[in-house]
Amino acid sequence: MIKLSVLYPNVPGGRFDLDYYRRHHLALLKARLGDACKGYVVCAGVSGLERDSAAPYVATCELLFDSREAFEQAFLPHGPAFRADHPNYTDIAPVRMVSEVVG
Amino acid sequence: MIKLSVLYPNVPGGRFDLDYYRRHHLALLKARLGDACKGYVVCAGVSGLERDSAAPYVATCELLFDSREAFEQAFLPHGPAFRADHPNYTDIAPVRMVSEVVG
Repeated sequence: MIKLSVLYPNVPGGRFDLDYYRRHHLALLKARLGDACKGYVVCAGVSGLERDSAAPYVATCELLFDSREAFEQAFLPHGPAFRADHPNYTDIAPVRMVSEVVG
Repeated sequence: MIKLSVLYPNVPGGRFDLDYYRRHHLALLKARLGDACKGYVVCAGVSGLERDSAAPYVATCELLFDSREAFEQAFLPHGPAFRADHPNYTDIAPVRMVSEVVG
C-alpha cells in the first residue's frame, strides 16, 4: 500500500485555515479520488515531543492507495484542481512524499 | 486521538536499517507501549510527488494514542530505552511531532 503525505511546515507567519481544509479541500479530494483512496488522516500539529516545543508542521494529510499506479491514475489528473484550491486555505508550500506502508 | 510522528530526514549519507527497525525497534515499542498504543504505521520513503524526485524522509513511524495524557504516561517513561536502541538502526536525528487527528 502507498501513502501520499502532504505536510504543511509551521513557518513563522504562515496561514492555514484548518476549518476550510476539512470542510472544502478534503471534500474535493474525496470527490475526485473516489474509491481509489483507501483511507485518509488529517492532523493538526500540536507540538514537538515536549509540550512546550513548536510543532514542525501546522497540519498534515495522509492518503492511502493500493499502489503507486492507482495513486497516479487517481490523483495526478486532478492535480490542477487541487492546486487551484490551495490559496483558499494556505500560503504555505507543502512537503509532499510518496511512501510505502511496511508495517 | 493523538498521533506521535517520528520522521527520519533523508539526509545525504544517512544510515537507516529498515529491517532492524521493523524487527526489533517496532517490537520494543509495542512491548513497552502495550494497549496504550491504539495503532501504528511504519512507512519507507519512496519519492516526492514525482517518481524521480527524492523522498524528504527515508522512513516514518506514526503511533496513535487516545489522548496526550495517555501518550505521555505510556511513552515518556520508556524514552531512555527507545533512545538507547536508536544507534542500532540509524544515525539520523528524527523530527518528532505530536498532532491531533481531526479528520
